[in-house]
Amino acid sequence: MNKLNEKAAENLIKIRKQTPLIHNITNYVVMNFTANVLLAMGASPVMAHAEHEVEEMVALSQALVLNIGTLSDSWVRAMIKAGKKASQTRPEIPVILDPVGSGATQYRTETTADIIQKTDITVIRGNASEILSLYNENAKTRGVDSAHSVTESLETAMTMSKKTNTVIAITGPADSVTDGERVVTVKNGHPLMACVTGTGCAATAVTGAFCSVDDDPLSAAATALAFFGLAGEKAGETAGAPGSFKTALIDALYTITPEELQRHSRFAVQ
Amino acid sequence: MNKLNEKAAENLIKIRKQTPLIHNITNYVVMNFTANVLLAMGASPVMAHAEHEVEEMVALSQALVLNIGTLSDSWVRAMIKAGKKASQTRPEIPVILDPVGSGATQYRTETTADIIQKTDITVIRGNASEILSLYNENAKTRGVDSAHSVTESLETAMTMSKKTNTVIAITGPADSVTDGERVVTVKNGHPLMACVTGTGCAATAVTGAFCSVDDDPLSAAATALAFFGLAGEKAGETAGAPGSFKTALIDALYTITPEELQRHSRFAVQ
Amino acid sequence: MNKLNEKAAENLIKIRKQTPLIHNITNYVVMNFTANVLLAMGASPVMAHAEHEVEEMVALSQALVLNIGTLSDSWVRAMIKAGKKASQTRPEIPVILDPVGSGATQYRTETTADIIQKTDITVIRGNASEILSLYNENAKTRGVDSAHSVTESLETAMTMSKKTNTVIAITGPADSVTDGERVVTVKNGHPLMACVTGTGCAATAVTGAFCSVDDDPLSAAATALAFFGLAGEKAGETAGAPGSFKTALIDALYTITPEELQRHSRFAVQ
Repeated sequence: MNKLNEKAAENLIKIRKQTPLIHNITNYVVMNFTANVLLAMGASPVMAHAEHEVEEMVALSQALVLNIGTLSDSWVRAMIKAGKKASQTRPEIPVILDPVGSGATQYRTETTADIIQKTDITVIRGNASEILSLYNENAKTRGVDSAHSVTESLETAMTMSKKTNTVIAITGPADSVTDGERVVTVKNGHPLMACVTGTGCAATAVTGAFCSVDDDPLSAAATALAFFGLAGEKAGETAGAPGSFKTALIDALYTITPEELQRHSRFAVQ
Repeated sequence: MNKLNEKAAENLIKIRKQTPLIHNITNYVVMNFTANVLLAMGASPVMAHAEHEVEEMVALSQALVLNIGTLSDSWVRAMIKAGKKASQTRPEIPVILDPVGSGATQYRTETTADIIQKTDITVIRGNASEILSLYNENAKTRGVDSAHSVTESLETAMTMSKKTNTVIAITGPADSVTDGERVVTVKNGHPLMACVTGTGCAATAVTGAFCSVDDDPLSAAATALAFFGLAGEKAGETAGAPGSFKTALIDALYTITPEELQRHSRFAVQ
Repeated sequence: MNKLNEKAAENLIKIRKQTPLIHNITNYVVMNFTANVLLAMGASPVMAHAEHEVEEMVALSQALVLNIGTLSDSWVRAMIKAGKKASQTRPEIPVILDPVGSGATQYRTETTADIIQKTDITVIRGNASEILSLYNENAKTRGVDSAHSVTESLETAMTMSKKTNTVIAITGPADSVTDGERVVTVKNGHPLMACVTGTGCAATAVTGAFCSVDDDPLSAAATALAFFGLAGEKAGETAGAPGSFKTALIDALYTITPEELQRHSRFAVQ
């Protein structure tokens, strides 16, 4: 636990020093917010989705974030193309998947399964319903919101994690991150995060940035979620409604120091 | 009038209790803002435009919002597909149309006519020029801004409303909502709303949320516009320029209580 | 120099009086921010990318802004179509190009060259790496961030400017604007601008608005960059982190008076 707190600070220092380029193929709703989140924390975002260029762009990058929030066929083809290229590149480029709304429609559930099968995903970050849908076709997602608790989905996450050799992060009031053996619970966060669109997607992008500087995807994902959750807590100290909260969240991603992150990250390892 | 004030409060209470899922097929410019508006007020937004999934997504939803602000062919096909599905579902799912820029280009004017003909629209929300263009091919819209007054377009709105059995809401300095017989004027709002992109589109999405809890589209649209206008007024109390106004508007959508809404909604019924 | 300060004020007065319609075919990440920037400063933005309608839309407009930040084939076709129409219209409609990420991938570099060849661009606005890539295929851009200094790219800019009869604006800590003969340096700006996504793209859109009221593209671009930079300076007086800075930047675009702009614009003419 203490080790993860130290790791969190180290990762943040590395990101701010190296300004890793994070290639996002993400949804229309959150593109602007995601780019601002990555910039504020010290990373360098790029968005590119054309099949012509994604391989070249991902090869310049230090992490690839795939997000199916507003998917369509050519975008999915670009995601798979970029994902394959990322895994073939040496050193390997970590690939983070956000299966937004998987379980809500067949198209989303099948696309998620397709991406997982055809690419080598490092971390999947989703809410409980989305994670359940990865394994259980009957799990239902309500739009893009979860209809299940993190606990309900943990067993599925551990099974899927082992089977696919992928770290799975389930976010909710508390987050659980597992590599199939270990489970790290992250207790940072604030209720107003659920009232701002794209905070889940942003957590995935932040995880991408942390994966670019940390070879262990379990600690990368856990420390990323602690950092993002702490930014929420800090925003909640001054803002009481979602508009000003969103502004304060971006500010906090910029102002949180490695020392603060080390002191206030709240992990529990099982 | 007093009845509409009560209805406004009731509708807001229902939305916050039921958190209706609002399916938006909307334009790229306003997706993030629209989602944040719906979340702040207590509804649950989802954006999905793929022809593969819109029927399944709308069937999970309590309202469908169609917005042609940045249209292209496959998006229009998806809108019509989703609109048809919404009308066939039982209980019927209300469909709200925002004909952004109708009148500015032939493509927009024709697309609007096509959507109205092929689907069963519950409420159309537009500015005066857009509403005029629904009926009069010679009405010209300047980009996405109105070149006409609400009063100039009211007669066209009433004619169209009767002909298509659709409630029409014309927004401007004061808003007029008509079902072809009755006209409700809504006097809430603030001049800075015109300086933030997507406030019209957001008003349409808010109307979708109100339609999901109110079977009478006339009172749903009128109370939605009062609520959104009141949020503008509240934002204008603290913010004097568009950046901080936008933040304060989102905050107000979250903090306005049903009692406040009932007290400060300003309706005039003709 | 004093003359440019006066011109800056005159241009701003004209924009606020005429509210020019600025047609943007731009990237998904910055659409909302760009529209809010144009609205706050007093212009009227419209976004439209469908090949069916871009010619009709641009003909209604006073400037056309092309931005390849998230390009794909049909968008590029629409940009070229709109660009051609703009140059054929009388009076000619100025076309501003933002070659986002040119140099990062072959697709972007080639698309930029293609647009420049097939349309008649009035002003190109980019960072140093992007501008270098216009002429030197070996210039490398790191994602969408510059890997070169403004000074390094000035010679290329002057050569390209003469060859293509296009004003070129290179933005960075200080900006350089050239028509191939003259060079104007603009010293307004604030470091936090680099921490908000889309400030470069927004500077391009602001340049479009200034070109719509100023027949000399060199003074239009220089005064636009002074105005946008000054808004950054003003935002930096109250905001110390990127979230609140972005809000304050929009506010400043709305509140800066022509007198303030005239007094605080910092030009150097070589």
